[in-house]
Amino acid sequence: MSLVDENSVGVVTPQIAHFDQPLALACGRELAEYDLVYETYGQLNEHCSNAVLICHALSGHHHAAGYHTLEDKKPGWWDECIGPGKPIDTNRFFVVSLNNLGGCHGSTGPNSIDPETGKPWGPDFPSLRARDWVNSQVRLADLLGIDCWAAVVGGSLGGMQAMRWALMFPERIKHCVVIASAMKLSAQNIAFNEIARQAIVSDPDFDRGYYLNNDAVPAKGLGLARMVGHVTYLSDHAMATKFGRELRTGSFDVGTDDDVVFQVESYLRHQGSQFSEHFDANTYILMTRALDYFDLAREYNDDPVTAFKNAKCSFLVVSFSTDWRFSPERSREIVDALIASNQQVSYAEIEAKEGHDAFLMPIPRYLELFSAYMKRVGESL
Amino acid sequence: MSLVDENSVGVVTPQIAHFDQPLALACGRELAEYDLVYETYGQLNEHCSNAVLICHALSGHHHAAGYHTLEDKKPGWWDECIGPGKPIDTNRFFVVSLNNLGGCHGSTGPNSIDPETGKPWGPDFPSLRARDWVNSQVRLADLLGIDCWAAVVGGSLGGMQAMRWALMFPERIKHCVVIASAMKLSAQNIAFNEIARQAIVSDPDFDRGYYLNNDAVPAKGLGLARMVGHVTYLSDHAMATKFGRELRTGSFDVGTDDDVVFQVESYLRHQGSQFSEHFDANTYILMTRALDYFDLAREYNDDPVTAFKNAKCSFLVVSFSTDWRFSPERSREIVDALIASNQQVSYAEIEAKEGHDAFLMPIPRYLELFSAYMKRVGESL
Repeated sequence: MSLVDENSVGVVTPQIAHFDQPLALACGRELAEYDLVYETYGQLNEHCSNAVLICHALSGHHHAAGYHTLEDKKPGWWDECIGPGKPIDTNRFFVVSLNNLGGCHGSTGPNSIDPETGKPWGPDFPSLRARDWVNSQVRLADLLGIDCWAAVVGGSLGGMQAMRWALMFPERIKHCVVIASAMKLSAQNIAFNEIARQAIVSDPDFDRGYYLNNDAVPAKGLGLARMVGHVTYLSDHAMATKFGRELRTGSFDVGTDDDVVFQVESYLRHQGSQFSEHFDANTYILMTRALDYFDLAREYNDDPVTAFKNAKCSFLVVSFSTDWRFSPERSREIVDALIASNQQVSYAEIEAKEGHDAFLMPIPRYLELFSAYMKRVGESL
Repeated sequence: MSLVDENSVGVVTPQIAHFDQPLALACGRELAEYDLVYETYGQLNEHCSNAVLICHALSGHHHAAGYHTLEDKKPGWWDECIGPGKPIDTNRFFVVSLNNLGGCHGSTGPNSIDPETGKPWGPDFPSLRARDWVNSQVRLADLLGIDCWAAVVGGSLGGMQAMRWALMFPERIKHCVVIASAMKLSAQNIAFNEIARQAIVSDPDFDRGYYLNNDAVPAKGLGLARMVGHVTYLSDHAMATKFGRELRTGSFDVGTDDDVVFQVESYLRHQGSQFSEHFDANTYILMTRALDYFDLAREYNDDPVTAFKNAKCSFLVVSFSTDWRFSPERSREIVDALIASNQQVSYAEIEAKEGHDAFLMPIPRYLELFSAYMKRVGESL
């Protein structure tokens, strides 16, 4: 049985935690109650000291490893890094992976029913910041009996949550693993997010976010948004290797007026269309906004050194050479601030051709380094 | 009078040339007749040997220098480089700048009337390649009495036309100036163009390209397409310098649920909306397609060295350090092929923070180098 071989966590079943105490949000509003859907891999040890929290990125969810059924064609999104013998070794760690609040994979979000109106929240769902996710994750930790995470781990937007954990709950996190992330987005990053949002809101089916009331989805706008994300998460080199200038249809020959379609175009259209079937447009807007708003040091006089003084954990920071949305320069800024703040930090820039998406890929040096770090985490429990 | 000061070509009047001989196109179709709108700056000398052709880029047009009226707020798009004492010195050269066939600024294009139907061509306008533009430009040269250009000059898509001139009409071009260009687009470049096109065709007002029949324009889609272009033509650094994370409206303060809008978002929306008032969506699609299709060496066994064997002119190739859509690497490929082909080539990579748009900017080393080269061109007439 290939699915449950020695490198896989096998078949997993998502669970739902209901929280009925109001959660105060950074925007000033509160959620009276909410659900979080999550999965766990591995066993919590006697002292509850081996728990690792996985924070997901923009379009991620709770299904990080293993399979939901034996028929699944693909495992969870971070199966390369989570499982027996993998960097986050489930023989050693108890791994918790949730769908964030505001998500669209089972946790309370814009496509959930607002108990006050009996209708989907839609665009009226409160705007969220990384700190709101941390606060909601704290309650999940409490529920699971986890006083202190052995590690909080995340890539991209997930890394932002991990850093926020280190500042907000320094007693509850021993190691903070920040992969392909940044202390705040650049203007270019915000610009790409804005293009994605404009694509969504320009779709007439978006109807100011109330599309669920019309049994509609802004599929074209969301598909376009995904295309923008996809292109910018890959490196130029990765796209060249994958597609080059290969044609899907048509011909370049002089004397033909075919509609020439390159492989890369066909691939993007497919990706966009697939994504829009499985993802909620209001969630996409909410998540990109949370990315834009994140600014680690804002309430610390814009000084990340001051911000990191609050942390008590050790840090691993990883970046990838061809990642141009969260470039190595952004990671070095984190590292420099941590060093200036007298924190323990390990840093690696991994040579990788895959751009931002490299953090999901089985790149040997990345997996080895990540494994070595997590092994130390496990040995210090 | 500031407008007609010593550095400006002053007030210029576009002219229209009508061509009534059929033009055979690469796609196998032909145009029975067509107009080209153009401007000229400076005086043609007695031997008609001092003419310089300007080839424009994706969203360019014939108005490259000077002003149309004394009330104009901005000069033509390349006023930094064309004028008395400027790199393309109008005291020395007779400069010809046209709107390409398929354009939307006065030359025959998708928003012109198809004489066969009496309606706008719209999406039925033939698809064009760089070679079609060269063939149409040859007729303009004939009309103006120019047997041989002192130089054909272009940035980006304009550089592609300049290179095509060198291969197709080696006897009619003495110098070829290729700025921020490439021998073919990368998969990433094609992907960004495809996103722009999808944004346009997804706009319900696009109506498969027949929007003019409905007195409509796909303003949102075209605006989005422009936003994609704009972000990718600027460097990350240029956007950071220009906007950073400055807010236009709203507040980040915890406890506020404002709609936070960053300056860069507001700027992009404005740029997109402005552009869609002045540019034709079918032309945008046609131009991005011409970019995608361009492949200098395709009919030369994919060997650019063989391709450039056809050229008899000298070359100046210029790239900009932070241009990530037409990176210095792409220019070095041109230079390497030219050297291997025993052609005369000068190359400069200019340190510039402005990304692809640097080719339009008054960067001192760029202007000096460009001036020095063009001075040599002028002295060899």
